[in-house]
Amino acid sequence: MRSYLECIPCFMSQALRAARIAQLDDEQTLKLLRIIGGKIKDIQLSDPPPKTGNMIYSLVAEISGKRDPYEWVKREHIDFALRMLPFMEGYIDDARDPVDAAMRVAAAGNIIDLGARKTVENVHKVLEDALTLKHRRWDIDQLKSALADARKILVLGDNAGETVFDFAMMKTLRRVYPGAGIFFSVRGGPTINDATYKDAVRSRIDEVATIISTGSDAPGILMDEVSPEFLEIFNSADVVISKGQGNYETLNDAPRPIFFVMTVKCEVVARHLNLPEGSSVLYFHPGGKSSERMTD
Amino acid sequence: MRSYLECIPCFMSQALRAARIAQLDDEQTLKLLRIIGGKIKDIQLSDPPPKTGNMIYSLVAEISGKRDPYEWVKREHIDFALRMLPFMEGYIDDARDPVDAAMRVAAAGNIIDLGARKTVENVHKVLEDALTLKHRRWDIDQLKSALADARKILVLGDNAGETVFDFAMMKTLRRVYPGAGIFFSVRGGPTINDATYKDAVRSRIDEVATIISTGSDAPGILMDEVSPEFLEIFNSADVVISKGQGNYETLNDAPRPIFFVMTVKCEVVARHLNLPEGSSVLYFHPGGKSSERMTD
Repeated sequence: MRSYLECIPCFMSQALRAARIAQLDDEQTLKLLRIIGGKIKDIQLSDPPPKTGNMIYSLVAEISGKRDPYEWVKREHIDFALRMLPFMEGYIDDARDPVDAAMRVAAAGNIIDLGARKTVENVHKVLEDALTLKHRRWDIDQLKSALADARKILVLGDNAGETVFDFAMMKTLRRVYPGAGIFFSVRGGPTINDATYKDAVRSRIDEVATIISTGSDAPGILMDEVSPEFLEIFNSADVVISKGQGNYETLNDAPRPIFFVMTVKCEVVARHLNLPEGSSVLYFHPGGKSSERMTD
Repeated sequence: MRSYLECIPCFMSQALRAARIAQLDDEQTLKLLRIIGGKIKDIQLSDPPPKTGNMIYSLVAEISGKRDPYEWVKREHIDFALRMLPFMEGYIDDARDPVDAAMRVAAAGNIIDLGARKTVENVHKVLEDALTLKHRRWDIDQLKSALADARKILVLGDNAGETVFDFAMMKTLRRVYPGAGIFFSVRGGPTINDATYKDAVRSRIDEVATIISTGSDAPGILMDEVSPEFLEIFNSADVVISKGQGNYETLNDAPRPIFFVMTVKCEVVARHLNLPEGSSVLYFHPGGKSSERMTD
């Protein structure tokens, strides 16, 4: 997906939010916003938003002087999600259709903004809401039919914390489809709160899948930046399940079929998918180019 | 009020919104955002936000090649509000306390975003809601006591359209306080949808008040930019009623007493006033400096 004019103010808001999380002081934050302001002239609207996102998050890291300024947030979210794991597993175990339930848990992981919740009780409530949500689009039959014959499944990871929900989902896939190998991709380096190798291990993903790096720091899958090893698995996988909006923004035109599991978190993507903002979906992309408006 | 770090992404959003209303094309809008991005380094956080607003709206006008790119919007909003005038006047006539009712109408004019409404029926409903709203802070007794002895009243105007609500309010003040002269200030030149002289006349304000210019284009009252004539009336008025957030942002520390009538439209001002975003208030500022956090 290309970037739209609306993405430009949003990049500034994202930068400010990232600066807060990375605990930059006011002077550092002002410096960050000034540098990014000056770089607006270099943004190519033909690039997907995560390309600019990567520039922003690298700058935040550089100014903060920390390699992974969101480390504490990621750790907090993962530990928090791990405490909810028995609840998720109970939900899947009790379900008549465990694969459907597992995908609902994975979707819930992308709905819940762990940063906004304070108490476990609160999150249980939010999680229950997320799990009972009527999804706007839920291509579960296509997914189950694809999984039935799959020998190689690739799950494209997104945020740390959400990874624990993905752990519960993949644990179920292993049980229901014991013949399939599962790969789980993480970012090649820290970028905002996206999961890296270490975050995936902390989320117990090594117990249920082979963790691979995309080979790129970008908060999405930029085909000209990922490693040959990642590309090989991406191309040869029988089923690709992609988590979150960043991966969608970079893969919506991918030539291969992809199942996108995500919450629509901005107006631009909502318009792009013709779904209301806030929708949570399991969206089957059959492969090939979608038509895209090139004017705003 | 100084500018805060949060204002910076907001300036970019305002620029995009202004560009849409001014009907800039995509290329012009991108150019605008790039120029403003490059100017972020020149923004002084010690300046009130309307100072930067003025820079943005001047740029929009320059790029659009029109002196008053919002003219059509302003005309539409005024004409629309004029059709609601009998409803407002009926509300005031029926009220037990016409001054209180008139101020509620004036506040409603700042709550209603005329741009978002499509039909008169809709607006009647929104107007009724605005009029029956429980205001978070409503210093009507102080205002009435100040008006009782006033010989000179100054109303600081805000948006075109809202001006019609102010017409109804001032018409009431004239009736209840026939001994007082009323002045109504407009911007010295077009700036976004703020009312200029022409807009005030279209809103019938010349029937109830003497229209004066601030002498400055800024969407607020910048003391170092206003004309000596404006300043003379501002300083000598017995009562100043200030409409909208832009005037508040530039006058919150004014040495003289001011009655602010406005809706809190952003998080920064909400924090500043310690009131929830969306609150609508009649707020008495006794004069003098408020304490202000200088860190974000």
